[in-house]
Amino acid sequence: MITFAPGPSELYFTVEDHMRQAFREGIPSISHRSKQFESFSKAATDGIRELLGVPAEYHIFFTASATEVWERATQNLTTEKTFHYVNGSFSKKFYEIAGQLGRKTEKFEVGHCEGFNEVIATEAELIALVANETSTGVTTSANFFKQVRDKNPNALLIVDGVSALPYQTLDYNAVDSVYFSVQKGFGLPAGLGVWMVNERCVERAKQLATKQVIGSYHSIPSFLSFEVKNQTPTTPNVLGIYLLSKVVEDFLRRGVSIIRNETEYKSAILYQALEAHRFIKPAVQKPEWRSKTTIVAQTDLHTQNLTKLLESQGLSPGDGYGPGKQTQLRFANFPAHSKEIFEKLVDAITAFQG
Amino acid sequence: MITFAPGPSELYFTVEDHMRQAFREGIPSISHRSKQFESFSKAATDGIRELLGVPAEYHIFFTASATEVWERATQNLTTEKTFHYVNGSFSKKFYEIAGQLGRKTEKFEVGHCEGFNEVIATEAELIALVANETSTGVTTSANFFKQVRDKNPNALLIVDGVSALPYQTLDYNAVDSVYFSVQKGFGLPAGLGVWMVNERCVERAKQLATKQVIGSYHSIPSFLSFEVKNQTPTTPNVLGIYLLSKVVEDFLRRGVSIIRNETEYKSAILYQALEAHRFIKPAVQKPEWRSKTTIVAQTDLHTQNLTKLLESQGLSPGDGYGPGKQTQLRFANFPAHSKEIFEKLVDAITAFQG
Repeated sequence: MITFAPGPSELYFTVEDHMRQAFREGIPSISHRSKQFESFSKAATDGIRELLGVPAEYHIFFTASATEVWERATQNLTTEKTFHYVNGSFSKKFYEIAGQLGRKTEKFEVGHCEGFNEVIATEAELIALVANETSTGVTTSANFFKQVRDKNPNALLIVDGVSALPYQTLDYNAVDSVYFSVQKGFGLPAGLGVWMVNERCVERAKQLATKQVIGSYHSIPSFLSFEVKNQTPTTPNVLGIYLLSKVVEDFLRRGVSIIRNETEYKSAILYQALEAHRFIKPAVQKPEWRSKTTIVAQTDLHTQNLTKLLESQGLSPGDGYGPGKQTQLRFANFPAHSKEIFEKLVDAITAFQG
Repeated sequence: MITFAPGPSELYFTVEDHMRQAFREGIPSISHRSKQFESFSKAATDGIRELLGVPAEYHIFFTASATEVWERATQNLTTEKTFHYVNGSFSKKFYEIAGQLGRKTEKFEVGHCEGFNEVIATEAELIALVANETSTGVTTSANFFKQVRDKNPNALLIVDGVSALPYQTLDYNAVDSVYFSVQKGFGLPAGLGVWMVNERCVERAKQLATKQVIGSYHSIPSFLSFEVKNQTPTTPNVLGIYLLSKVVEDFLRRGVSIIRNETEYKSAILYQALEAHRFIKPAVQKPEWRSKTTIVAQTDLHTQNLTKLLESQGLSPGDGYGPGKQTQLRFANFPAHSKEIFEKLVDAITAFQG
């Protein structure tokens, strides 16, 4: 059974071999203070930098999850006020966490499966945007991030890259922080987040540290003091970092442009099939808002029958999320999903007669 | 090569098979909101409860690490003041983290490789003790915890069980919270912590939540709201929880009393060999302070030569920690270390001529 759930999602096809190799090399038992750890930890961050085109100015840290980044970013980058573009469950959760941490939170919220075309001016210290709303399959473009930044040059801009990366091209100079977790586009087991911050974030954290609590072991200054040795402040998911270093190496060998072209091909044939279908349609109306990496189908009364048909062919769709739980199906389009499997999926959907 | 480093440490011998089975079953790709996840998550917490004799009153939560528990406990259980019995690097780190989070911290500190025989009265809201100081091989007994509790009935008592469990028997009714990470006595890959709290902790957290920030997704109330479904507040290390459920099952099948007896046998023969040796001695002087699960040898000028000899026989000792880095070696005595391998270790040390 191939799963199209957008995270935890289908593993990248090399992961099982890398896991076997990790056991052969004794990786699960090595110290996170050893040269061996430093070596693959550096390979992982260097590889991410090359793969995604992250400028040298950025620092790359490992967290337990993307959720942890919501908390750490609020603690390290803000004192009073955060602003959130909300267009689904995950952008909303960041908004809620900042509120739980005592920040005055503002949001600009749009309807289910809608995107943004209005840039808001705000006094907030941090503006949070999501590149790809995993819950609704709506994308926000690098160009929109740039407009937000131009209108709010003093705020820090943080972008959720979960389920967008490695596909989506970002202009890292037009944002201040990007984060993701590895169980989506990177096709790895859950339990590891990656947080990237530029020097503006570092300066903000150092300045805030003089007047407020910014956390402890996972504050930006704490991360920095271990980054110089390619280490982490505390025992991390060592195996997760090893696997990430290996999969990033695989992605680089394959070539990011090939991965991106294939992603576009796969999304094009699926959207085409949905557009042409009698009963099923793309859930996101506006073509420019349609995610290339999480394709949501409006299945309405056909949800159960289509699920049954697909599962009978070894294809497991992702459930709809939140308001779309009964009426939508989600299809992750990650590097782990081959062209062949997408063609099979498209054929199955096209043949579906209700 | 067998490693005696006390964490990340030697894997329990069944882990590789469980990992293979996890891939066969597709565990790395399943949702943490699925029935399948709920099932092994419940198996893990039920198993821990049975294995360690944790009363029904306790809640069992999953964190990213033991370090995370230091932060969450400080946030959820204290407003102003914490007290720390410090006898090594790990007890000190909790003290430091509470300070970084803005608490007024007090400590009672003893020298390197020393334990406690004095109970302090304190006004602190939380008293932190370590069952087994991994850095120095010093144990603190269940009886001492009881004395601390009797002298300070209003404070909450939190015990670091890292590297003590599953061996050490604790009186869970005489403490309020116990935590550990899985990469030591449980012989699992790093990247998962287990935090157990009683109803006093729950009440304290709920009360503090009305007047201060107690964190967000990993606050005690947030953990509780997902515990009812055997779920976690955010995507956890799913694979880690699966492996924990399996290893706990293995431990239960073997029997905790057999594990404890073997631990005592292995520690007895190693301490005996150290006592009898011409050049090497136990680092901890007082027999009642000597840890059964982390045995530290005072190797002084012989550190390098002994390490070389042991490694030539496929036995890798753990380095000394902090002040003992050049002059001590540490030997973890976990369920992953067989009697046979300990006998081999003892023979090698006994034969060492300097």
